[in-house]
Amino acid sequence: MGVDRELPTPEAYDLLELTRDLVTAELAPRAAADEEAGRFPREVFRTLGRAGLLGLPYPEESGGGQPYEVYLQVVEELAAGWLAVGLGVSVHTLACFPIAAYGSAEQRERLLPDLIGGELLGAYCLSEPSSGSDAAALTTKAYHDGGAYTISGTKAWITHGGHADFYTVFARTGADKSRGISCFHVPAGTDGVRAAPPEKKMGLRSSPTAQMHFDDARAPEGDRIGVEGQGFPIALSALDGGRLGIAACAVGVAQAALDTAVSYARERRQFGQRIADLQGLQFMLADMATGVAAARALYLAAARRRDAGRPYGPQAAMAKLFATDTAMRVATDAVQVLGGYGYVTDFPAERYLREAKVLQIVEGTNQVQRMVIGRHLAGR
Amino acid sequence: MGVDRELPTPEAYDLLELTRDLVTAELAPRAAADEEAGRFPREVFRTLGRAGLLGLPYPEESGGGQPYEVYLQVVEELAAGWLAVGLGVSVHTLACFPIAAYGSAEQRERLLPDLIGGELLGAYCLSEPSSGSDAAALTTKAYHDGGAYTISGTKAWITHGGHADFYTVFARTGADKSRGISCFHVPAGTDGVRAAPPEKKMGLRSSPTAQMHFDDARAPEGDRIGVEGQGFPIALSALDGGRLGIAACAVGVAQAALDTAVSYARERRQFGQRIADLQGLQFMLADMATGVAAARALYLAAARRRDAGRPYGPQAAMAKLFATDTAMRVATDAVQVLGGYGYVTDFPAERYLREAKVLQIVEGTNQVQRMVIGRHLAGR
Amino acid sequence: MGVDRELPTPEAYDLLELTRDLVTAELAPRAAADEEAGRFPREVFRTLGRAGLLGLPYPEESGGGQPYEVYLQVVEELAAGWLAVGLGVSVHTLACFPIAAYGSAEQRERLLPDLIGGELLGAYCLSEPSSGSDAAALTTKAYHDGGAYTISGTKAWITHGGHADFYTVFARTGADKSRGISCFHVPAGTDGVRAAPPEKKMGLRSSPTAQMHFDDARAPEGDRIGVEGQGFPIALSALDGGRLGIAACAVGVAQAALDTAVSYARERRQFGQRIADLQGLQFMLADMATGVAAARALYLAAARRRDAGRPYGPQAAMAKLFATDTAMRVATDAVQVLGGYGYVTDFPAERYLREAKVLQIVEGTNQVQRMVIGRHLAGR
Amino acid sequence: MGVDRELPTPEAYDLLELTRDLVTAELAPRAAADEEAGRFPREVFRTLGRAGLLGLPYPEESGGGQPYEVYLQVVEELAAGWLAVGLGVSVHTLACFPIAAYGSAEQRERLLPDLIGGELLGAYCLSEPSSGSDAAALTTKAYHDGGAYTISGTKAWITHGGHADFYTVFARTGADKSRGISCFHVPAGTDGVRAAPPEKKMGLRSSPTAQMHFDDARAPEGDRIGVEGQGFPIALSALDGGRLGIAACAVGVAQAALDTAVSYARERRQFGQRIADLQGLQFMLADMATGVAAARALYLAAARRRDAGRPYGPQAAMAKLFATDTAMRVATDAVQVLGGYGYVTDFPAERYLREAKVLQIVEGTNQVQRMVIGRHLAGR
Repeated sequence: MGVDRELPTPEAYDLLELTRDLVTAELAPRAAADEEAGRFPREVFRTLGRAGLLGLPYPEESGGGQPYEVYLQVVEELAAGWLAVGLGVSVHTLACFPIAAYGSAEQRERLLPDLIGGELLGAYCLSEPSSGSDAAALTTKAYHDGGAYTISGTKAWITHGGHADFYTVFARTGADKSRGISCFHVPAGTDGVRAAPPEKKMGLRSSPTAQMHFDDARAPEGDRIGVEGQGFPIALSALDGGRLGIAACAVGVAQAALDTAVSYARERRQFGQRIADLQGLQFMLADMATGVAAARALYLAAARRRDAGRPYGPQAAMAKLFATDTAMRVATDAVQVLGGYGYVTDFPAERYLREAKVLQIVEGTNQVQRMVIGRHLAGR
Repeated sequence: MGVDRELPTPEAYDLLELTRDLVTAELAPRAAADEEAGRFPREVFRTLGRAGLLGLPYPEESGGGQPYEVYLQVVEELAAGWLAVGLGVSVHTLACFPIAAYGSAEQRERLLPDLIGGELLGAYCLSEPSSGSDAAALTTKAYHDGGAYTISGTKAWITHGGHADFYTVFARTGADKSRGISCFHVPAGTDGVRAAPPEKKMGLRSSPTAQMHFDDARAPEGDRIGVEGQGFPIALSALDGGRLGIAACAVGVAQAALDTAVSYARERRQFGQRIADLQGLQFMLADMATGVAAARALYLAAARRRDAGRPYGPQAAMAKLFATDTAMRVATDAVQVLGGYGYVTDFPAERYLREAKVLQIVEGTNQVQRMVIGRHLAGR
Repeated sequence: MGVDRELPTPEAYDLLELTRDLVTAELAPRAAADEEAGRFPREVFRTLGRAGLLGLPYPEESGGGQPYEVYLQVVEELAAGWLAVGLGVSVHTLACFPIAAYGSAEQRERLLPDLIGGELLGAYCLSEPSSGSDAAALTTKAYHDGGAYTISGTKAWITHGGHADFYTVFARTGADKSRGISCFHVPAGTDGVRAAPPEKKMGLRSSPTAQMHFDDARAPEGDRIGVEGQGFPIALSALDGGRLGIAACAVGVAQAALDTAVSYARERRQFGQRIADLQGLQFMLADMATGVAAARALYLAAARRRDAGRPYGPQAAMAKLFATDTAMRVATDAVQVLGGYGYVTDFPAERYLREAKVLQIVEGTNQVQRMVIGRHLAGR
Repeated sequence: MGVDRELPTPEAYDLLELTRDLVTAELAPRAAADEEAGRFPREVFRTLGRAGLLGLPYPEESGGGQPYEVYLQVVEELAAGWLAVGLGVSVHTLACFPIAAYGSAEQRERLLPDLIGGELLGAYCLSEPSSGSDAAALTTKAYHDGGAYTISGTKAWITHGGHADFYTVFARTGADKSRGISCFHVPAGTDGVRAAPPEKKMGLRSSPTAQMHFDDARAPEGDRIGVEGQGFPIALSALDGGRLGIAACAVGVAQAALDTAVSYARERRQFGQRIADLQGLQFMLADMATGVAAARALYLAAARRRDAGRPYGPQAAMAKLFATDTAMRVATDAVQVLGGYGYVTDFPAERYLREAKVLQIVEGTNQVQRMVIGRHLAGR
């Protein structure tokens, strides 16, 4: 149906239109089949890179220069078409962020063009099997030895694991829980970097998720991002932006589910009328639409804080929490609107439901978001 | 963990224990694999029949004599182990009910033993592609002609469609919307009875669902159940009981999801402690457990009304509505408790979520339940 | 409208009918005016005592002998008519419970008849200003000295404070947090017992709530209930039953709110029809009625466990949590059904809303109930 | 605590600071006492008028020129301090809107200065006793006769009824349900204009609400606003803006309730720590804060559509629905955070709860908002 957006510039309207055209032409025809088959659309990211859509949140000289509120709405539209792509862009941006924000001039010059151009796809390696929500408890080690680091350990739940061209890896270089962590850029071909078989997931099946094993993988000093021990602040700072990316994905999935429900309700007849004209159903659609609108408004408000250079961590956590809880509720109700048709794979409603669920979990479960917000309120 | 139940008789305790033993020995080892493969466990129903579990809600002389509150708790335990089986029993009971409650002595004597013994599995053919929630709008026709009826039309969303041994079919024998419907017993081998390919569903994949086509299928007068035109009251009356069956299934799925979450939370450690000891998570588990307990108490209260011979239609609708909405919420939260582990198929949490959703839809969507309850309250 | 109940005996039906008659004759005519004026209906408790309604949960030889499930439904009916009375009975029962369950034969013989007869009204003194939810942190002291105890300290949120004839007081007789507490029976006229001015509350205004000051109040050894140090288990055990009382009160208030909403919706016309016939409103009423039915079923299930002599602490906590959260939701929605008429004092809807709120707080806030349930689930 | 806002101009920051100063100096010291006494603070509106705060949403030459998003945040801050004032400003703006938007140049010149200056306070007379939610069903008549109209009928739920200096009255000048309505400016002193005794309300007691009787009240043609028959579109158009005003009020009340809860939780100790450090409570506060932030973001998004000159009717309905449902939930939970202290009038939490409830009802119940949104989605 097309979301009627308020955008800051004419250029932003063009970008959103370009995005919707790409969704229609490149994503929509294959999303369902690739999702069913668990096939990762690697080349779609190249297409996005060439179209300039991977560089939006970077400086103008890198081909970007868009405010985060525009970048996020592009992510939202991509996720509405195909979550694996929208979320993939968000994860790629997350993996690039440490280089862009904390990398040296040399690193930025050397790496950013291919990252932004879609030639190299990234993955973000923070979580570990036994340190999901408690990120600072990670145990992957990086020994400093003769001008390089040797990284050993296992990372879990890595989006693009086994398909990425580089991994942004957080590893322990010291004993202090949060101050003993450093950040590394590790190309995929590095010796000792190996992906476990991909996870079999309830949904988001075309986006590979895997454990990554690092067995004495060597990273030269020049590939450490930021100073030694700066890794945890880098990770948290990246996550603030990443959470807004997930919030945008959630709104995309929720909007797609709502659109599917509204279209169906306008066509389907029961009790002698369109079900869209039954007040009970209308109220349900009204609540769904209101939730989607509130979630979008909330992530955009947080993005504008970021764009204004102000702290936005608790706001990003609120946006992630609210948008993903809303997406789950809206997708659940969208299946309900379609009734039996919602439960079969001929219609996309059930896919949206399966997709929505993962968003309550990734980049900090919604319980972690509540911790972030709660501590902020508690004044601790 | 085992639900700590209040049961009316020592015999009922034995039946529940028998059920749990069957779940452990026969269902648990295969449920996940068959569900993944979409394989219908037809022979399990024979096992249940031989164990006497398919005859519980029938008169004592048929080998039953159990109150509905006991029968339903057996269904709950089966559904907790494998929804396809618990729901299959409920649907089979639904398909048998017209014969048991409205059939002639001859019909009961001829048909009930094999139905109760698990030799013949039933399906219930009421819904049609364009009359889902508005059951009385059905268009399948049954022409009366020379001592028999000729049935033509298509039924939709038929559990056991293509696998059942007989179909309890509602078809139009007159023009009046609700008073022009009659009920028929149609064996599977009847000429003109044909199943469409099974639906591809989000979950409950080992329970086949298909459209059933009736092309001039012949039913002798002796297989009409009740008098001509009595079909709709029969259908509604069957649904009252069937809704309690779905409520029991929902409580089973919710309990299984809760048990999975509690077990995980007692094992998994984060932030230096078991996550079961984190208060935020504990409150979530408390709300889940409370919902499950309330849903069970509600369906049992409705069942006791039925057992006491009192009207229980609105109560059954409330139980179905509340139990299935609760199951969906509890299953969604159970996945959340497991985090990433909840989203992968190695753990059963994601299966419970996919299963819970269908229960909000079958045997009257929860919107239809609200209509039933709402009209009762409105005094109409 | 009259709730259609399943009761265990004909005698129970008589008791419920007697209760409803008393509500109609004695409570209904004055509830609104006394509530507005903040006037405590002390004599109503005498009437209830004479009618035998205060002795139900005690042994048959004390004039009781009713199962708890019957007693609670009496409380529910009273609370539906006037919460100050229903809750007052529950609190009185709570204050009597230590004597009945832990008192010596002499204490039971000496005290119970007047307690059950309504001559002496009780209050339960556990909470303190700084130990609301953490009951074991109480600091009121009881010095043992020469055959008697001298009690000093302040108790908070005491229902019937300043109006009760006796106070069941928990005070510290030792240092151990939970094992250093003892229970005392303290008549109102005892020197050093003094009530602070009553709290000004949002609702439940006809039920006095006050701090109670104990300044060297003397309790002879013969008025200690149970052995020294047994106070905390006594308090917790009393609370299990008390929580069911609050759950019953909550269902009463919720039922009254629902009845008010249904009556109004059947009369009020908008858009050319009764609003009870608008589907959006019908669905709302259906959800309200379902919540009330589930809450009632849940507290009755817990009560039957108690009646069967089985542990029921977590079940009582679930019933209190669920019933009071439901009451708050139902009362909020009942005001909504009446629209502007719901917000003015001419209709009782707004009173039910103000009353419902207190039930989420008393006898353990709903956060405390979640702790009780959560710890049970966590296996601690 | 002070909300950390993103505002469009430095002038807007000054206006918000001025507002907060006024709240601190003029509103805070009297709100609780006047609310308790049911005393209308008429002179506060003069103070606001002199400070320029009543003219914000009008053209710059009238002393306004602020975008609606700024005006609404001023209303939010006022409502946080004292709902009767914030809502009073919103209602006054609603009553002025027809003149400002549909009045002739002569009417605007004659009336606006005193309206904006706070000299004349307005009331909005649309609802009637039997046409609450169905506004177009109004029956108040305006007979055209010799250059003037004679208005007769009764209006219900009129904020400022009996205290306003003028009434913006909608009355029937023709038979057509929606096209037979016209709008009139009626000064308070007009013969035949009479207020019924004020309603006794659950909250918002310092803001008078009354029925207004019009008995042959004469309005010269020059006081008809817009053309004959244009009344209903004028009313709906005014309501779009008015709903945003209510949404802003709701966010104000919710923020005040949240602030009260957070302050209390940071001070209050239980179980040996600040309750703000208990995770269960922290999660509750996190959900409250997230709801408030989402509600604010949603009404601001709708306001920006209005400021951009785009249609915003469904968006305003969503903002009103979401913000007021959120306020009710947050205020209910804020009382809960304070426990017993939340239920007594010494703390403002219970006042916020009583205030929040009215916002779900006024200017279109939330059921009416769902109709507006639902029909928009249904494409009707």
